[in-house]
Amino acid sequence: MAAKAAIIGAGHTRFGALEAGPRALLRTAVDEAFGSVDHGIDRSEVGEVYLASLGFGGWQIGNSAAVLAEEMGRPGVAASRIENACASGGFALRAAVRAVTAGSAEAVLVAGVEKMTDMPNARRRYWLGVSGDTEWERLAGLTFAGVYGLIASRYLAEHGVGPEALAEVAVKNHAAGALNPNAHFHKVLTREQVLSAPRVADPLGLFDCCPVSDGAAAVLVVRADRARRFTDSPVYVEGLGAGSDHLAVQERGELTRFAATRRAAEEAFRDSGVERRSISFLEVHDCFTIAELLALEDLGFAGPGEAARLTLSGATRRTGSLPVNPDGGLKAKGHPIGASGVSQVYEVFRQLRGEAGPRQIAGAERALTHNVGGAGATAAVGIFAAG
Amino acid sequence: MAAKAAIIGAGHTRFGALEAGPRALLRTAVDEAFGSVDHGIDRSEVGEVYLASLGFGGWQIGNSAAVLAEEMGRPGVAASRIENACASGGFALRAAVRAVTAGSAEAVLVAGVEKMTDMPNARRRYWLGVSGDTEWERLAGLTFAGVYGLIASRYLAEHGVGPEALAEVAVKNHAAGALNPNAHFHKVLTREQVLSAPRVADPLGLFDCCPVSDGAAAVLVVRADRARRFTDSPVYVEGLGAGSDHLAVQERGELTRFAATRRAAEEAFRDSGVERRSISFLEVHDCFTIAELLALEDLGFAGPGEAARLTLSGATRRTGSLPVNPDGGLKAKGHPIGASGVSQVYEVFRQLRGEAGPRQIAGAERALTHNVGGAGATAAVGIFAAG
Repeated sequence: MAAKAAIIGAGHTRFGALEAGPRALLRTAVDEAFGSVDHGIDRSEVGEVYLASLGFGGWQIGNSAAVLAEEMGRPGVAASRIENACASGGFALRAAVRAVTAGSAEAVLVAGVEKMTDMPNARRRYWLGVSGDTEWERLAGLTFAGVYGLIASRYLAEHGVGPEALAEVAVKNHAAGALNPNAHFHKVLTREQVLSAPRVADPLGLFDCCPVSDGAAAVLVVRADRARRFTDSPVYVEGLGAGSDHLAVQERGELTRFAATRRAAEEAFRDSGVERRSISFLEVHDCFTIAELLALEDLGFAGPGEAARLTLSGATRRTGSLPVNPDGGLKAKGHPIGASGVSQVYEVFRQLRGEAGPRQIAGAERALTHNVGGAGATAAVGIFAAG
Repeated sequence: MAAKAAIIGAGHTRFGALEAGPRALLRTAVDEAFGSVDHGIDRSEVGEVYLASLGFGGWQIGNSAAVLAEEMGRPGVAASRIENACASGGFALRAAVRAVTAGSAEAVLVAGVEKMTDMPNARRRYWLGVSGDTEWERLAGLTFAGVYGLIASRYLAEHGVGPEALAEVAVKNHAAGALNPNAHFHKVLTREQVLSAPRVADPLGLFDCCPVSDGAAAVLVVRADRARRFTDSPVYVEGLGAGSDHLAVQERGELTRFAATRRAAEEAFRDSGVERRSISFLEVHDCFTIAELLALEDLGFAGPGEAARLTLSGATRRTGSLPVNPDGGLKAKGHPIGASGVSQVYEVFRQLRGEAGPRQIAGAERALTHNVGGAGATAAVGIFAAG
């Protein structure tokens, strides 16, 4: 199927524990996105903006989309906030693509932001938990690390796999992050360091968990048939998919598969007509190491339990046959909630244009993004191709 | 311009201080919406859902769109939350119309919900303020009543108008609410009662302010050319518009006009090709009495200062020449934040199908909805016609 939309520009702040506040972070990412449009674009051509943000306590919790229009320098433009927890960015891209496809805007700006480190620890824990089921998980004390720890235990037991497969995800993504100037961590890890780190929620240790990060990312979307007005190297959105699931993990039929991801992937592949074997690399939602293994299986790149072996084989390294998270993933690049899904699209934009510097994947032509909200209650998948 | 989308069903809970929790409220509104589709619709035809909610403290703050898919009985379907404070519903409708227009879903469910009365007063005040500018308004102690009080003072002074015009909005909307079984208040007020009520933020008294309400509303949206499969009396979405403004009131050029509303109205009228004189009635965002006067002027139905005289003339009563808020408005019907914009569309659906019972406007053929986020930082306008 012909692509309906294209990305013509992208911007990204450093991810990490940053001095800058959310407005400044947004502005930096947005300015870089506009500056990256090869033939230029006037900001007045942007007819609508979508903000992806959980709106963390201490900043603007309600009505924050108006801030994005302000920081773009055009208060007045239609502005919406999309909040689907950690999948906010993927769903905001979806809304933006619909807006240009429906013909209502020439260009649409999508930006994600989160300022997470600027609050005391207790409040941070509260805000981190708000995307899990309230009655059965958050109020019962089950954290996200706890949920993913349960899932990891089950996965290892079901498939007779050891924790080395989890550790290898961390080792690989930290190696990739070390090559990404925007990454939260540039620390290279050994498998032994990951395995011997303090436990967080067994079998997940400290290095199996993504960090709490600040940051922002932004992309500019236009209708596919207008893309070449703005750049000779657009990145086309070939397909999008989205799905949901019971919010509480206990309501689901199985722990080690995310139905939301499976549904989103099915829709994205159907929408695009693309086959899995033509995908050059993946950006998947590795909030915990186990999540990357689930993603590979739910997206259809590995059978049940095979993701562990695939990962241990080295195939998912940047130089392997199916590179996964060449930017370091949430694990090493960092995870400023609302920004993460947009950041994945930023990486795809850079890689498919051959602009990823030392982390460039040779010959990358097509990529998939996978963005998950909470512990799998929402998921968005995108398929992109070089122009 | 030909309508692109249509409303084929609508549901609404009672608004008020209710026993039911947010899930039950959603379910009631959603079930009624499905039940109202004349020729029936299978829930499997709904390809996507949009939840409008501020996500008030105590309930599901993050990732709550998944709950809507669950309560529709179809966990799995793509689900997004749109949060633009009190304008969430209007923007969620916009996203849904784009989804069907872009051809990605046969039918889309839009539902708004808020559970506001189930928390202590102090927390309620915190949560009510989160949609105002954080740095310059909320943290400085400026509440929404305070902002609208400032606006009202300025309006009365600028136009040499007395508080009777404000009071008349309350009297009119309470009279209308008394005829609406779903309204929070069924109490009829006299102008003297409004004028002598305790002051909240001068010149606004208790009866100039909308209440804190619980409630939910839902509508089903399909592409216009598919509408007659589902009903012989669809309500067509003829045009939509949206706008934004500086979040902090102090950044704006003027206090007594909302640029976001003006922009949204301009887009909606341009999009629809409809002229103002063909609009039978309006559903406007009267969170405070002054807001209804501003709306009439910003939407282009009255010149600067003329809304006061128009209101005092009785023209905006249900039986007048330009009925405004025949359901009681936010003022008397209640204002469960995320539900309010969807509730306006519910009223339009009922009125344009001649199903509004004792509050029916004779001969209503075309209507406008106007939904504002915060103190005017976001606004959405819709124009609808009977099928």
